[in-house]
Amino acid sequence: MRVLGIDPGLTRCGMGVVEGDVGRPLSLVDVNVIRTSSDVPVPQRLVTIERGIDAWLDEHQPDAVAVERIFARSDVSTIMGTAQAAGVAMVCAARRGLPIALHTPSEVKAAVSGNGRADKAQVGMMVTRILRLDAVPKPADAADALALAITHIWRGGAQARIDAAVAAAGGRRS
Amino acid sequence: MRVLGIDPGLTRCGMGVVEGDVGRPLSLVDVNVIRTSSDVPVPQRLVTIERGIDAWLDEHQPDAVAVERIFARSDVSTIMGTAQAAGVAMVCAARRGLPIALHTPSEVKAAVSGNGRADKAQVGMMVTRILRLDAVPKPADAADALALAITHIWRGGAQARIDAAVAAAGGRRS
Repeated sequence: MRVLGIDPGLTRCGMGVVEGDVGRPLSLVDVNVIRTSSDVPVPQRLVTIERGIDAWLDEHQPDAVAVERIFARSDVSTIMGTAQAAGVAMVCAARRGLPIALHTPSEVKAAVSGNGRADKAQVGMMVTRILRLDAVPKPADAADALALAITHIWRGGAQARIDAAVAAAGGRRS
Repeated sequence: MRVLGIDPGLTRCGMGVVEGDVGRPLSLVDVNVIRTSSDVPVPQRLVTIERGIDAWLDEHQPDAVAVERIFARSDVSTIMGTAQAAGVAMVCAARRGLPIALHTPSEVKAAVSGNGRADKAQVGMMVTRILRLDAVPKPADAADALALAITHIWRGGAQARIDAAVAAAGGRRS
């Protein structure tokens, strides 16, 4: 499966496309960061982000989109813009009927590094290893977007196997 | 001028269209509330809001859009959804090149009632008087959206007169 991970933000919105399945090597398809200037009014910045995401959905045709789940307890100075960028990302994907999953930063850190409190450098290093890249993707938003996509493939795969096992046992998920 | 006021929210997103100019009676064009169920995933709810706003922009062709400015210190349980709905509203307007203004709840309360700490009932009553309606618009989100549109016309008008006076005096706004 091919997953677009989005690390939402007004100033930098990371987008990473990863392809692969659980138990097989994953590969990088493309990674980019949409940047918008704080000199520009927020509505126009959001339109730039919308266009950037739409262009990537057109180009890479992912099977699913994973967006970082934002919490109100995050950094207050940037939280509103981050939430708005996340909303735009969700709308872009939902308009196309794509499955959308939200993963928390802890879930992503735990999935790629085994530690829910890993720092940015550790996440970047693990993304580099998992995707067998020559260098750590920069800026951190790019690495985070890739980590989201990796998390989605791995977590989705685990869930799919659980579903299959439950179905094979004649059970039903509540 | 015709202004669309939007009181953003995931569960209820108020939309109110008001027409008029400073110093003249204002009139209600239309008012509505987009409702989405909490049983539906957030991305789909945001798409419903986007479609509702787009439909109103098509139908009412406003000259400007006024959106409530959200603060991170607001109610934490609903703030993320509110911010995302506000982001979608801004994108809908910005895509069409419409002027967008954000007004804080205090600015709106002060503009329609003279008191920045007015309660919901007072705002509803003043909106009813200003637009010469037979009854207070319900729910509060509808009245708030109309109050936003009224605020925008009155504040915009004041600003336009200041600009004109400064220009007439040969000055320049910094």
